[in-house]
Amino acid sequence: MKVELLSITPNAEKIIEKAGRTSYLSFDKEKIGSERNFIKFLIKHGHLSVLEHASATFRIKGASRSFTHQFVRHRLASYTQQSQRYVNEENFEYVIPPSIMQNKNALKIYTEFMANAKKTYSELRKMDIFKEDARFVLPNAVVSEIVITANFREFRHIFKLRCDQKAQWEIREICIKMLEVLKEKAPSVFEDFVIDYTQKIAYTPYSD
Amino acid sequence: MKVELLSITPNAEKIIEKAGRTSYLSFDKEKIGSERNFIKFLIKHGHLSVLEHASATFRIKGASRSFTHQFVRHRLASYTQQSQRYVNEENFEYVIPPSIMQNKNALKIYTEFMANAKKTYSELRKMDIFKEDARFVLPNAVVSEIVITANFREFRHIFKLRCDQKAQWEIREICIKMLEVLKEKAPSVFEDFVIDYTQKIAYTPYSD
Amino acid sequence: MKVELLSITPNAEKIIEKAGRTSYLSFDKEKIGSERNFIKFLIKHGHLSVLEHASATFRIKGASRSFTHQFVRHRLASYTQQSQRYVNEENFEYVIPPSIMQNKNALKIYTEFMANAKKTYSELRKMDIFKEDARFVLPNAVVSEIVITANFREFRHIFKLRCDQKAQWEIREICIKMLEVLKEKAPSVFEDFVIDYTQKIAYTPYSD
Amino acid sequence: MKVELLSITPNAEKIIEKAGRTSYLSFDKEKIGSERNFIKFLIKHGHLSVLEHASATFRIKGASRSFTHQFVRHRLASYTQQSQRYVNEENFEYVIPPSIMQNKNALKIYTEFMANAKKTYSELRKMDIFKEDARFVLPNAVVSEIVITANFREFRHIFKLRCDQKAQWEIREICIKMLEVLKEKAPSVFEDFVIDYTQKIAYTPYSD
Repeated sequence: MKVELLSITPNAEKIIEKAGRTSYLSFDKEKIGSERNFIKFLIKHGHLSVLEHASATFRIKGASRSFTHQFVRHRLASYTQQSQRYVNEENFEYVIPPSIMQNKNALKIYTEFMANAKKTYSELRKMDIFKEDARFVLPNAVVSEIVITANFREFRHIFKLRCDQKAQWEIREICIKMLEVLKEKAPSVFEDFVIDYTQKIAYTPYSD
Repeated sequence: MKVELLSITPNAEKIIEKAGRTSYLSFDKEKIGSERNFIKFLIKHGHLSVLEHASATFRIKGASRSFTHQFVRHRLASYTQQSQRYVNEENFEYVIPPSIMQNKNALKIYTEFMANAKKTYSELRKMDIFKEDARFVLPNAVVSEIVITANFREFRHIFKLRCDQKAQWEIREICIKMLEVLKEKAPSVFEDFVIDYTQKIAYTPYSD
Repeated sequence: MKVELLSITPNAEKIIEKAGRTSYLSFDKEKIGSERNFIKFLIKHGHLSVLEHASATFRIKGASRSFTHQFVRHRLASYTQQSQRYVNEENFEYVIPPSIMQNKNALKIYTEFMANAKKTYSELRKMDIFKEDARFVLPNAVVSEIVITANFREFRHIFKLRCDQKAQWEIREICIKMLEVLKEKAPSVFEDFVIDYTQKIAYTPYSD
Repeated sequence: MKVELLSITPNAEKIIEKAGRTSYLSFDKEKIGSERNFIKFLIKHGHLSVLEHASATFRIKGASRSFTHQFVRHRLASYTQQSQRYVNEENFEYVIPPSIMQNKNALKIYTEFMANAKKTYSELRKMDIFKEDARFVLPNAVVSEIVITANFREFRHIFKLRCDQKAQWEIREICIKMLEVLKEKAPSVFEDFVIDYTQKIAYTPYSD
């Protein structure tokens, strides 16, 4: 699985400060580096709407349709996803959950099943069944490329929910990768999120 | 597949009129039956935001995960869906596309594959693979119950897109069933939509 | 100022339970009165999306344009508002803030100013200035009727923010009135909100 | 009135193409300049969701509170606005509608009224009335700085509605200025909009 940053608001932290100071017309307080404390203040006091003025776009490759079905339930974001109605899936790749990877017997029946799914899909296609109907046999494990755009406030909300211990492992793994990128690119917006690599979770003391 | 109306705004058309007349404070024009012409006027002139004051909630049973993944992309609506992380899917039901139903050979390999998927899922569960990981083998065809709430403006938008000739057959079929219900319950809001039962499509002359 | 409930989802709490049980297909646990504990569970555990299946519509009369400008910033709701482009405002009513009401001198210059605003508006209208331009003289205090529809999750979010001590007095007063209605109509969804009538605030221990 | 572009997605058109090609995995068709025809195709066929991956942020100075109240009704955008609760408005600037500017008598009573509004506001402040209450006398004409972020799909929707002949003059004027900037920065996304400088309107043949 691969997370690639396609686009991000340039000077995102400074833009947030420039936008945020509009409420108070306090532009005289804008200095080199003043965005850091300004943003910390916003987050601490829950003035999160200002974070909406910056956004990022990620391409996710190698994630399953289980992941995408779950992720697109976040409604305050924009998505473009590989379409099983139009893309030929005869040679689909698929995700293997760690619990199955670690279990030799489980892995055997899992990979056999995936081979069977490929074969069935191909046979249906040869019988002139359209892609949009042949896809009904495709398992949740099949990978589906997706491009995701969201603003920073929404990314914080998503990370809060999806990097939590109770979240499902695949969405957690992908969200932590996006969080790592955003922590680097816009540190003051995401630095309160602590990543615990032992437990593979992330969390922040602030509510959203 | 079954579409069940769980809830709808009582006297929806009258509520829309009562809300809509607020713009002009034209409450003196409110009469018995005046909501019909008022709503026709709104639709004709594109004042669709007023239609947001009424909403409906449907339960959809027997639709595939292909359908649900596609439908939940409509972001201005609310969803609660059967979770494959928590529900045991050993005896899943599945959708059969008409093109496969009508093709004896295709149907044979399709049903065999579904039996195999069930068997694989059950075997994984017996090996103590959690439901949230065993579900990776579940095909798109597996049914998933979903409850959908949207306001009337959004339902019009959804019908416009999803009852169209280019839409996929399953989402079109389900949307036409919801449209039939709403045409009966709130006729003036949906009567411009014409259902063509030969082609199994619906359309309206108005843009949204 | 008057808050009138125009519409609410019938049997809202039961609808929420019926929708919410879809995730787990736990319909066998649905009993008379079971919705109360079910909803408490949802709120305690932050599964708030299920509350979106119920909604309410209020008419607010006698609130100022300051209030409406502030309130319509809540984007997950639907609004229809008295239009100063179309409604003749020659005899506008206006809101008097308590701090001004309690200060005899302030009240005097305030009421004189409002009389002057009315006169100026009328004179501009007599010079054939269109309503949409004459309205530029109308003060924030001028009342503006508005109809608001939102789902229960969003109402909880709005109350959390707008019934807080830091909120402005007019929006707080109106939100507490809406909260009172919803506490009566859908108690299990709003009973965690405590109204403190001395301080004229409301709060809940749960984050949203 | 001044419209300033604060931020825009870098290489917005290319990002849209890169995102959009994900549906079909047609990345082999991506060439230098291929984004132009790709985007024209999207717009012509109504695949507008792909345009959501690019966005722009504008600062609007010198627009009235009438404008901001109207504009913030567009819910699929992000706003930060000068707060009359916190900013001292003793020396407020104000907008003069053209119809009043062109009418000597109207202009006289209008400017006198604005002077009176300033005086009343200042007097209330001297009586220790808080800014959040003194602002009740401020007229709609008072300028209010606002920062607006929206994605390109939403900007198209806004321009479609707000550059139309039926739109109010101030919002139309400001939207045409934003359109001019976006036509220059992302031509293929906005080139179907024709600006008619005689009538001060803009329109496109495509519905949204």
